[in-house]
Amino acid sequence: MDVKTILAKRKRIVQREMLKQIGSGKPKILWDMMKDYPQRGGKFLRPALIMITCEAFGGKPKKATLTAAAYEMFQDWILIHDDIEDKSDERRGKPCLHKMHGIPLAINAGDALHGLMWRTLLKNKKVLGEKKTLRVMEEFADVITKTTMGQTMELYWVENNIWDVSEKDYYKMIGLKTSPYTITHPCRLGAIIAGKSEKTINAFNAFGDALGKAFQIQDDVLNLIADESKYGKEIAGDLYEGKRTLILIHLLRSCTKSEREKVIKILSKRREDKKKSEIRYILRLMHSYGSIDYAVSQARRYAVKAKRLFNRINIPEGRAKKELEAIIDFVVEREL
Amino acid sequence: MDVKTILAKRKRIVQREMLKQIGSGKPKILWDMMKDYPQRGGKFLRPALIMITCEAFGGKPKKATLTAAAYEMFQDWILIHDDIEDKSDERRGKPCLHKMHGIPLAINAGDALHGLMWRTLLKNKKVLGEKKTLRVMEEFADVITKTTMGQTMELYWVENNIWDVSEKDYYKMIGLKTSPYTITHPCRLGAIIAGKSEKTINAFNAFGDALGKAFQIQDDVLNLIADESKYGKEIAGDLYEGKRTLILIHLLRSCTKSEREKVIKILSKRREDKKKSEIRYILRLMHSYGSIDYAVSQARRYAVKAKRLFNRINIPEGRAKKELEAIIDFVVEREL
Repeated sequence: MDVKTILAKRKRIVQREMLKQIGSGKPKILWDMMKDYPQRGGKFLRPALIMITCEAFGGKPKKATLTAAAYEMFQDWILIHDDIEDKSDERRGKPCLHKMHGIPLAINAGDALHGLMWRTLLKNKKVLGEKKTLRVMEEFADVITKTTMGQTMELYWVENNIWDVSEKDYYKMIGLKTSPYTITHPCRLGAIIAGKSEKTINAFNAFGDALGKAFQIQDDVLNLIADESKYGKEIAGDLYEGKRTLILIHLLRSCTKSEREKVIKILSKRREDKKKSEIRYILRLMHSYGSIDYAVSQARRYAVKAKRLFNRINIPEGRAKKELEAIIDFVVEREL
Repeated sequence: MDVKTILAKRKRIVQREMLKQIGSGKPKILWDMMKDYPQRGGKFLRPALIMITCEAFGGKPKKATLTAAAYEMFQDWILIHDDIEDKSDERRGKPCLHKMHGIPLAINAGDALHGLMWRTLLKNKKVLGEKKTLRVMEEFADVITKTTMGQTMELYWVENNIWDVSEKDYYKMIGLKTSPYTITHPCRLGAIIAGKSEKTINAFNAFGDALGKAFQIQDDVLNLIADESKYGKEIAGDLYEGKRTLILIHLLRSCTKSEREKVIKILSKRREDKKKSEIRYILRLMHSYGSIDYAVSQARRYAVKAKRLFNRINIPEGRAKKELEAIIDFVVEREL
């Protein structure tokens, strides 16, 4: 099964629905901004998980379209804000929204898209009925809380120049920032729309936690070694942004004291003061101390755990289940 | 009827409910940030309008408490973001949230509180039933869209150094940014919770538009001439932030060409480059050209219009209606 085809099929449906729901309005600049990230694309991994999980449990994909479109809006408004928070330069191969329009208009456009996300979820009423519409919304409220909790941990480390972050801290952070939003809640939503029991819905929690962690570690690795044209973000952006990744945590505990001091001194600089040669120095250290290999091995470990947990969930055999399995493999083997 | 007593009574109920709904959690810093503006207080005008309108139509105030608390959360998360967007320094007599914790953590805390607002609205299910819970949420989605539309207009003028803003543009902007969120939707929500018809709900639109405009113009006036200890924001903050107020629009069309050029030159500076003497110069011009008096007269005109429209709405006579009337007077006669 080709994951690109699996994702592309859902992307067509979800992206069209999302742009339809955003629609157009005045002031035109606001709608242009709200439609910018949605039109840039991306993998549409999360809405695809909603739709395929729903299908795997015998639910009609049509019933999941609005929820999937709303979920991709969530992805986009939170990326608009994250890009400001992380002082990122590029997103999906183009300048970040705040780099094009300034921070004030970008924050506001993110809020507007957040509002439209809930408006889209309210339209589920006709498709899912009142009860299930509210149930779906509860998942969205949960995932926003968890994602912002994880984001707080990460931003707090950066803001307060905290470098003694343990592997445990890191896993706690990505278990809040990444796993719920990337894997757990999309799968839960698919199961909810298909009308499964709370027991089945909850069965995705441990699986999603493990696969989400594999995804994030792999993302940290790709951030350092990917082909920029495929990755869509600046290579080594995490080093420019001073992110506490598993790779960095491994390096800081493996290198000499003087190297550690030098690395922290570089990473503590403002992004515009960081020289390319300094970033290359850290990258070289990461390679030579095996920090990148270490992260790859941990991503694999979590992926294996995720597969084991996935097999315990009672999902009917069929095409959709096979597609989910292909996505699980993709998460840690992807190059983009 | 003493408006302070009317508002204080609802503030006690709503503030307690809001803090209960926000609760506590980890990382503690996130919950500290989410509870900061709610604990600072404010007038609680908007949630009070929800509760009193509900009462005026015979609804139980208890049924409106969660909605009122959620509405005040809306006020707080959007103020956190607005303060960043407007580069404000102070809010309710203390430094703005982003001045205390930095912009990244403040944006994220605003998003977290936005999420909790919807979570609070979902709890209406037990109080209002599924149908009305969704109806209330539709109002919130509407008011977010309108508020962000108005905010876009205002930020766009500032961001692009646009000074030829007409009175018509200004009214359009505040008719989106201020009226829906301050008056129209709180009253509509009260009527919805009390179970009134769409016709009655819609009767608040023209009234809210007029009273909201009176409120905003009065707010612009107070921003320039208020007693700082009462007002809770920096005096003449609008001039430091370069806001296009009715007062400024009047001044720019009344003063000489060279004065106009001088005023625009000062207002176009970054806030940290604006001298106190320059701000005082503009304030003097605004007084001498009668721009402040003009704005006061326009606020009165809209207040008179609002009263006329209010009297056409079919609200049962009683204490709650008298309280609403007292609030209408307060909006343009307030000193804080």
